[in-house]
Amino acid sequence: MKRMITHVDAYTPEGVQTDVSIYIDGTSIQAIGRLDEPIRDDADEVIDGQGMLALPGLVNSHTHVAMTLFRSYADDVALMDWLQNHIWPAEEKLTDELVYWGSQLAFAEMIRGGTTAFCDMYMHMDAVAQAAVDVGIRGTLARGLAGVSPNGEEALAQNVELFHRWHGAHDGLLRVMLGPHAPYTCPGEYIRQVAATAKREGMEVHIHLSETQGEVDTCYEKHGVSPIAWMEELGLFEVPTLAAHCVHVDEQDLDILARRHVRVAHNPRSNLKLASGIAPLTAMQEKGIVVGLGTDGCSSNNKLDMFEEMQLAALLHKGHLQDAFAVTAKEAIALATEGGARAIGYNKGLGTLQVGALADIILLDRSGYHWQPCYDVTSSIAYSANSMDVDTVMINGQPVMRHRELLTIDIARVREEMKKAQQYFATLQK
Amino acid sequence: MKRMITHVDAYTPEGVQTDVSIYIDGTSIQAIGRLDEPIRDDADEVIDGQGMLALPGLVNSHTHVAMTLFRSYADDVALMDWLQNHIWPAEEKLTDELVYWGSQLAFAEMIRGGTTAFCDMYMHMDAVAQAAVDVGIRGTLARGLAGVSPNGEEALAQNVELFHRWHGAHDGLLRVMLGPHAPYTCPGEYIRQVAATAKREGMEVHIHLSETQGEVDTCYEKHGVSPIAWMEELGLFEVPTLAAHCVHVDEQDLDILARRHVRVAHNPRSNLKLASGIAPLTAMQEKGIVVGLGTDGCSSNNKLDMFEEMQLAALLHKGHLQDAFAVTAKEAIALATEGGARAIGYNKGLGTLQVGALADIILLDRSGYHWQPCYDVTSSIAYSANSMDVDTVMINGQPVMRHRELLTIDIARVREEMKKAQQYFATLQK
Repeated sequence: MKRMITHVDAYTPEGVQTDVSIYIDGTSIQAIGRLDEPIRDDADEVIDGQGMLALPGLVNSHTHVAMTLFRSYADDVALMDWLQNHIWPAEEKLTDELVYWGSQLAFAEMIRGGTTAFCDMYMHMDAVAQAAVDVGIRGTLARGLAGVSPNGEEALAQNVELFHRWHGAHDGLLRVMLGPHAPYTCPGEYIRQVAATAKREGMEVHIHLSETQGEVDTCYEKHGVSPIAWMEELGLFEVPTLAAHCVHVDEQDLDILARRHVRVAHNPRSNLKLASGIAPLTAMQEKGIVVGLGTDGCSSNNKLDMFEEMQLAALLHKGHLQDAFAVTAKEAIALATEGGARAIGYNKGLGTLQVGALADIILLDRSGYHWQPCYDVTSSIAYSANSMDVDTVMINGQPVMRHRELLTIDIARVREEMKKAQQYFATLQK
Repeated sequence: MKRMITHVDAYTPEGVQTDVSIYIDGTSIQAIGRLDEPIRDDADEVIDGQGMLALPGLVNSHTHVAMTLFRSYADDVALMDWLQNHIWPAEEKLTDELVYWGSQLAFAEMIRGGTTAFCDMYMHMDAVAQAAVDVGIRGTLARGLAGVSPNGEEALAQNVELFHRWHGAHDGLLRVMLGPHAPYTCPGEYIRQVAATAKREGMEVHIHLSETQGEVDTCYEKHGVSPIAWMEELGLFEVPTLAAHCVHVDEQDLDILARRHVRVAHNPRSNLKLASGIAPLTAMQEKGIVVGLGTDGCSSNNKLDMFEEMQLAALLHKGHLQDAFAVTAKEAIALATEGGARAIGYNKGLGTLQVGALADIILLDRSGYHWQPCYDVTSSIAYSANSMDVDTVMINGQPVMRHRELLTIDIARVREEMKKAQQYFATLQK
């Protein structure tokens, strides 16, 4: 299938190109240029981009999609109360069906807001995979593995099965990583086993690291080193790894991350809401560490809005460091697109609008008042845009939203399922 | 004119009341209750609120509305470069007409996003007042006064004239304050003169205080005290005062603000973007200081989105202080509504949905995916809502937006004027 987006302004690595066409063949971009240039125009489908701004789709590099089910379930309570008395008891009641519909809701919200790829760690992952395939959204999935749990071994085996079943499936739309949850839920021996499994299977790893000061303190008490140093000792970083959070890291931790090419998912909004702190993003970037942005699960956010994460990343570090140049508009956009793509394991070919890249493209409607006037498109994306500006979304060359209508999700059914789920989980709280 | 909003869920001081009617007579709320209760139903206009959530309109307690003209004009440049080479030369070219249309754009954006009242400090203020009256938005206006400028005296006289002309005008929609810009632009003698004028005329004061560390350092060098202590010494706080920012304040400053009942406008997004820092909001609240939220001018934000300020206030202080209870959902909503109302000088009767309050009411459409599920409405307002959810806006009892259509703004004309303004100011930069 050949598609062409015409008369669009395109945010490309070379700057904003005005009134160009983007020519897509199958899953990738074949050409970007003016129609009067030699550009093929035998498209099966033409999408009129008049007045729109084309951006690479945003990449949510760390989330737990089905936690949409628990949006606003228990806010403004202490972390352990939240986990022990609300989230964990509710998660025990999860089924494949609930996770499937919770994932569909997450995908509706993500696509509506211009997110075209996500990196997930949760449970009932076949349901997440099936939902992603049904919707046509790009996903990198991991089964959350808690080595301390009695089913730690079983979960690891399930994660490998998930890899065999889904990795590379559906035109490469899905990928699978191993998901050891965190150093404080995975004993050293278990982490070694995960690393050995990853090597044997050729898998990458997605883990939470150094999210809170308490986690770091406990790790020093137990193991005499930081969580990151401990993971290195255990050999985890011999495998390509994505580390979520890395809020409480010191110079030595950053050096390890850089040396081991560990990629980081920075989740500014979740880190604020859970009172974890503010990750040293600029220090990571100075070390050359690959960083993407993530929403985390939307029960700790409470949305899956990558425009908000991008803008918060642009703003937060300026204020926190009292440095007006900490993260520029251009850098913030890069974090949310190509940074995220690299963080979740796409070395090239995702997260930019250029020839040869995968055709994950969003079109922004700039008619909103917050876009007037616009002297600088880059600045307006990073500081003014709203996720609701997204008009059209294409993933892997396939349109999934057009004029704000979702094309691959039965949203009435999703609403119905969410209503039932809400009634069910609300009853549990009583 | 009597109006009734029916079958709406209402966020009131007593909690969320479901399926009630709000009865408005003239400019104020006369009753809130179920239709089967004794509630008058002789309304001239009925607004169906089915499925909607009614909130008090949001209050933007510190802004420079016509700076919409300079949105994205010069971002990611150093403050002095920004001022000296971009903003000040451009502001010299401002006319009444440009400020009028820039204000109309700001009001379009604010109303679209649920803001019903603003507190402004700028120039060409008759144009701002006229625009506010034409649109029907609640405004508290001050002429920005720079005592160091050759026209300092003249500006003060203009500010008093503005007060005589507009204070209390149009059913109390407009109010006028004196607007001494800041301690670093107003010599001591000028501040004394402002305070004397305020006392003589019965005016309140709106000033920028302790926004940056540099401002505080310079004040200590010049006057041996902090900007806040210096303003107290000069007698400014003998007049009711709204102080914007107060980012760099110590214990003694906070004690002065509390003792003198100085109200504070907290501008979290602007303070981050301009790398000013993070104001000690929770310390202010512990001292009992009245705090509202503001966007500041949208050239340093870059939007006028009070939902974003509210959510940022809820999140930022949790992360910065590593305290998950720093600002709760309920507190964040209060800051954006009644806190703002008190900050801009409404002691009672604005910023809450209750009998006797001014009828500044917004209706939120909760059909967005980010609202599903919703176990806790308060939490969803503070952490999930998007300004684009606002469906209907009423100010002083008058509908100004219905189903996202602005009723009092010729938006085609505003767009046309902005296009011209953009061309004009873009040329200046060349």
